[in-house]
Amino acid sequence: MYRKEIRIVDCTVRDGGLMNHWRFSDDFVKAVYNANLEAGVDFMEIGYKSSEKAYSRKENGDWKFCEEKDLRRIVGDNNTKLKLSALIDIGRIELDQIKPKKDSVIDLIRVACYVHQIDKAIYHAEYCLDKGYQTTINLMAVSKVNERDLDEALEDIAKSRVPIFYLVDSFGNMYCEHIQQLVHKYRSAMPDKTIGIHAHNNMQLAFSNTVTAIIEGCNMLDSTFLGLGRGAGNCPTELLISFLKNPKYRLLPILDAIQKHVLPLQQNIDWGYHIPYMITGSLNEHPKVAMEWMDSENKNDFVSFLRKLHDKEILE
Amino acid sequence: MYRKEIRIVDCTVRDGGLMNHWRFSDDFVKAVYNANLEAGVDFMEIGYKSSEKAYSRKENGDWKFCEEKDLRRIVGDNNTKLKLSALIDIGRIELDQIKPKKDSVIDLIRVACYVHQIDKAIYHAEYCLDKGYQTTINLMAVSKVNERDLDEALEDIAKSRVPIFYLVDSFGNMYCEHIQQLVHKYRSAMPDKTIGIHAHNNMQLAFSNTVTAIIEGCNMLDSTFLGLGRGAGNCPTELLISFLKNPKYRLLPILDAIQKHVLPLQQNIDWGYHIPYMITGSLNEHPKVAMEWMDSENKNDFVSFLRKLHDKEILE
Repeated sequence: MYRKEIRIVDCTVRDGGLMNHWRFSDDFVKAVYNANLEAGVDFMEIGYKSSEKAYSRKENGDWKFCEEKDLRRIVGDNNTKLKLSALIDIGRIELDQIKPKKDSVIDLIRVACYVHQIDKAIYHAEYCLDKGYQTTINLMAVSKVNERDLDEALEDIAKSRVPIFYLVDSFGNMYCEHIQQLVHKYRSAMPDKTIGIHAHNNMQLAFSNTVTAIIEGCNMLDSTFLGLGRGAGNCPTELLISFLKNPKYRLLPILDAIQKHVLPLQQNIDWGYHIPYMITGSLNEHPKVAMEWMDSENKNDFVSFLRKLHDKEILE
Repeated sequence: MYRKEIRIVDCTVRDGGLMNHWRFSDDFVKAVYNANLEAGVDFMEIGYKSSEKAYSRKENGDWKFCEEKDLRRIVGDNNTKLKLSALIDIGRIELDQIKPKKDSVIDLIRVACYVHQIDKAIYHAEYCLDKGYQTTINLMAVSKVNERDLDEALEDIAKSRVPIFYLVDSFGNMYCEHIQQLVHKYRSAMPDKTIGIHAHNNMQLAFSNTVTAIIEGCNMLDSTFLGLGRGAGNCPTELLISFLKNPKYRLLPILDAIQKHVLPLQQNIDWGYHIPYMITGSLNEHPKVAMEWMDSENKNDFVSFLRKLHDKEILE
């Protein structure tokens, strides 16, 4: 599958931070940065840019905010081939936090939104474009969006100047036929734009859905080391690189960082395939309720979790 | 995906036994049996039938041999809807061990073979048919078989009386395009036979490959509780039942058995997605070398494992 347009976006710190409130050591963030650099990964999404009016510093580590001084502590001026990305959430950022590109080590700002926020997302993304950044819009939770609303959103994106649009399976609910249909729809609605894929692994389908998306023409591929990410996690970078066999990528630096820095996190963080995440994925529900269950004493009582969600349904 | 011809074959004890030499407690085997029965699973493969000339009783538990008295200790006369299966390996069974069906609680005998053993496999399978059993041939390691040899094997199977033929991804090397191509080839070669799928999870593709196989027309689906099986394990039964949404299957009894009986095995058995299994899968190699690595003190030194397999290749 040799296609020179393909780009990998590493989301280890950004999506993984959803499991530990972005309280990663500097050693960890530097190790992920160095591994991405050595592996030839194209982008590293190092965190969110957020307002301190929306999130407290006390409860969240530096990578929830991505202040310039914190970024430079890790990457210096980042005079490398590895580009840096930050994600922004509509309503949780003030636009004047976004400095002109010449004053930032960030290269790419991705705008995450729900379908009712598409207009705001386009406004934010075009604002970032005008400040000199590369930009994407990532429409979350598309597995819950009805066809009429999605078609209108796609029309609006198509007319915008935003060059990249993402298929995001936030709940880990989709399988290959969903991906085929949506990538086809996205590409038909905006044939000149790049389509990206961000998958979650609730049903062990994050990697296979990413492969399906590649086959259907997606060229921006999100992944994380050992799948570290919210709930069941994401498409594992090591699988993606092994599959692509693209000469610009190297597997060894990723494995090195995994064994030294990511595997030890499993002592404290329950990401990856676990039955409660599988159940919310299968029911097309937000993983939040499964994450709460995984944090409780009942984490391995799957029968009670299924009964809680299905309530009185007896044919479980 | 409602298709009444679909059958699930639970392989938890048979394939899982490859990780602990079939040393399961009777409680465990009974729990799997009862869960399959309550969940509406069609077949339970309870072990191998093997000769004691090939395998010692000292090193292997009862489910490597499946003697009638041991089976009846668990299932009695099995006057239930759940059918029992046993796997035989060419060259590791004596045909006179296979009693007439009327004297056995086994319903289905599956014959596992490599491509050079196809003629023997047909002989064994037709022998079992004549003794009154249902039967399949499971061609292993097809990811290593060249097209000429495979085509000849398919011609021979097509001419045989064996009604069911299996696509087996022994090394967990295949992705959706392999599965599509092979199921199409198998179905074209033998349009009147049922095609089955047995997948391994080295690259987190066992479930998605099973879904692809279903879409392409496979109707016999192997799975195990929580994916328990050799190396990276198999397609998880809980995912398969959640996906099928077929009214004859119930998820709850499977989850109950997983939380009470399967999850505790994780203390002692390293099945599931681990980087060494991913590496052998990606390289299309037998998982044995990864299983040995996982049993060593170096199990989490993935860099050394990759270097060991790639030898002097510097572009890892």
